[in-house]
Amino acid sequence: MLLGSIEAGGTKFICAVGNEKYETIDCERIPTTTPDETLEKAVNYFKKFKDLKSISISSFGPIELRQNDKKYGYITETPKIGWSDVNFLGTMKQHFDLPIYWTTDVNGSVYGEYINLHAKNNAINSIVYYTIGTGVGAGVIFNNKFLGDLGHPEMGHIKLKRHPDDLDFDGICPYHKDCLEGLVAGPTFEARLGKKGFEVPITNHVWDIMAYYVAQAALQSTLTIRPSRIIFGGGVVNEKFLDKIRFEFTKMMNGYVNVGNIKDYIQKPSISGNGSATIGNFALAKSLLS
Amino acid sequence: MLLGSIEAGGTKFICAVGNEKYETIDCERIPTTTPDETLEKAVNYFKKFKDLKSISISSFGPIELRQNDKKYGYITETPKIGWSDVNFLGTMKQHFDLPIYWTTDVNGSVYGEYINLHAKNNAINSIVYYTIGTGVGAGVIFNNKFLGDLGHPEMGHIKLKRHPDDLDFDGICPYHKDCLEGLVAGPTFEARLGKKGFEVPITNHVWDIMAYYVAQAALQSTLTIRPSRIIFGGGVVNEKFLDKIRFEFTKMMNGYVNVGNIKDYIQKPSISGNGSATIGNFALAKSLLS
Ligand SMILES: Nc1ncnc2c1ncn2[C@@H]1O[C@H](COP(=O)(O)OP(=O)(O)O)[C@@H](O)[C@H]1O
Ligand SMILES: Nc1ncnc2c1ncn2[C@@H]1O[C@H](COP(=O)(O)OP(=O)(O)O)[C@@H](O)[C@H]1O
Ligand SMILES: [Zn+2]
Ligand SMILES: [Zn+2]
Repeated sequence: MLLGSIEAGGTKFICAVGNEKYETIDCERIPTTTPDETLEKAVNYFKKFKDLKSISISSFGPIELRQNDKKYGYITETPKIGWSDVNFLGTMKQHFDLPIYWTTDVNGSVYGEYINLHAKNNAINSIVYYTIGTGVGAGVIFNNKFLGDLGHPEMGHIKLKRHPDDLDFDGICPYHKDCLEGLVAGPTFEARLGKKGFEVPITNHVWDIMAYYVAQAALQSTLTIRPSRIIFGGGVVNEKFLDKIRFEFTKMMNGYVNVGNIKDYIQKPSISGNGSATIGNFALAKSLLS
Repeated sequence: MLLGSIEAGGTKFICAVGNEKYETIDCERIPTTTPDETLEKAVNYFKKFKDLKSISISSFGPIELRQNDKKYGYITETPKIGWSDVNFLGTMKQHFDLPIYWTTDVNGSVYGEYINLHAKNNAINSIVYYTIGTGVGAGVIFNNKFLGDLGHPEMGHIKLKRHPDDLDFDGICPYHKDCLEGLVAGPTFEARLGKKGFEVPITNHVWDIMAYYVAQAALQSTLTIRPSRIIFGGGVVNEKFLDKIRFEFTKMMNGYVNVGNIKDYIQKPSISGNGSATIGNFALAKSLLS
């Protein structure tokens, strides 16, 4: 039995095929160009696997995931040129007479983390996963279900208390200026300092300012969801930055609710090499077969 | 068949008995004095009903609701004098050999609203309920389950972007100063203006400032949970204040996610006379019998 995974990102599609133990058997990286070209390559990739039983797609967005909506399976209004109003799921369904799961990129990641962590420790029933990269997104698994009823979470766009040393920075979100994404996404390094994130040493105060904002996001999701764990992935995140986030979080929480060991509670992904979404997709694809 | 409800508040306990249609057959208001005295009165009240099949308690808190914790059923560390570390559920279980449900006051309310609204419109699958009174609390129902894994939500204590006209006010939360509760709970009227909330006309700018904060709470829970509805109850809330909250919410959201008609989305409780928790308790009590 083979399971298919598409992790559809703004710069690349990772297509993969795995077995029922969620081991990757084959994979291909497809650059994200036009929808026609990219989806055709994805279709051709999976056509090679005769034994494919189901597929799961975790896609950049925003996407429509309410099954009763006529745009179910579409990428909706995205800033990514050419990709608004694209019937992603429908295109795949035209070519494959298989069950296909449809969710967001971060939902794929959080599900992979859930599968991996819950197998080791079944007290882990709920996870919040943030990605901090070109944008900021989040997915939440709670009792084996994704959070999101009218649509998927958009926790990248919450409002925050501003850091006193950062009041001159307007923020770069085109919708809200100084929401979380507008204050901590990768491109804020260029906007604040005129250089790329990887060029900014961890001793630069900008990292403390960003940690103050990310800690607020962790605080809010803690107080709202009381999850077992909060995971941060994405190009901006590193271990020293995580330590700063843990420090600010502990200070803000001020003992109000107990989250256990902060080193366990606020974590990087447990699956290395950005592999969370692929594992998550394999598991979601398999869930369609039972 | 009779179902029991205890809505345990910091000033009063509302004990009630209802039938399987969730109609109240009898009820009694017990002032909250010492735990011994108050719980004894509650026990004596329910002893009168021989046909009682189950009970649900929705209590002020914080409470322990993780069933595998040795303090399950306790009110934990509460500022309410005499009530910390009280084994509320255990005391009831000593006197009644019945199934007893145990949850927070706001979870009782949100469940009552869910039962009532879902019966009329089964697209309503998830509700966030805030109470703004002496404190600020919230309960969330999502796909027929309460949110909260390591514990119950504490959304009263989220951090917020401060209103430019309110920067001189420190906030009154003993833990966080200017969290949501510290900025909008009933006693903030006394702290800001030296008079009680009911004496402050809706034209006073303080109401706009408070609406700005409450709208942020609604925004955050929208972006995190994407619920079908957000309900505000409690002594501070009135229809004109709700209008201000809707206005600020719409401005902040700036079209980013569609929540449908804002008048439906942000609402007062659908059950009048503070009756949500009692209905919720009847339904939760009944759920123990199936
Ligand atoms: N070492 C680093 N430190 C800080 N920011 C980084 C680092 N490496 C990459 N970034 C930033 O992360 C962003 C890319 O995030 P990534 O998660 O890799 O991709 P995407 O979000 O586009 O899928 C870019 O804005 C990049 O500048
Ligand atoms: N009309 C009003 N306008 C504003 N605040 C009010 C009004 N009526 C009561 N309050 C405030 O609401 C709080 C009480 O809230 P309530 O929900 O009735 O009780 P509790 O939270 O203690 O269960 C008090 O701080 C009170 O001053
Ligand atoms: Zn934004
Ligand atoms: Zn607080």
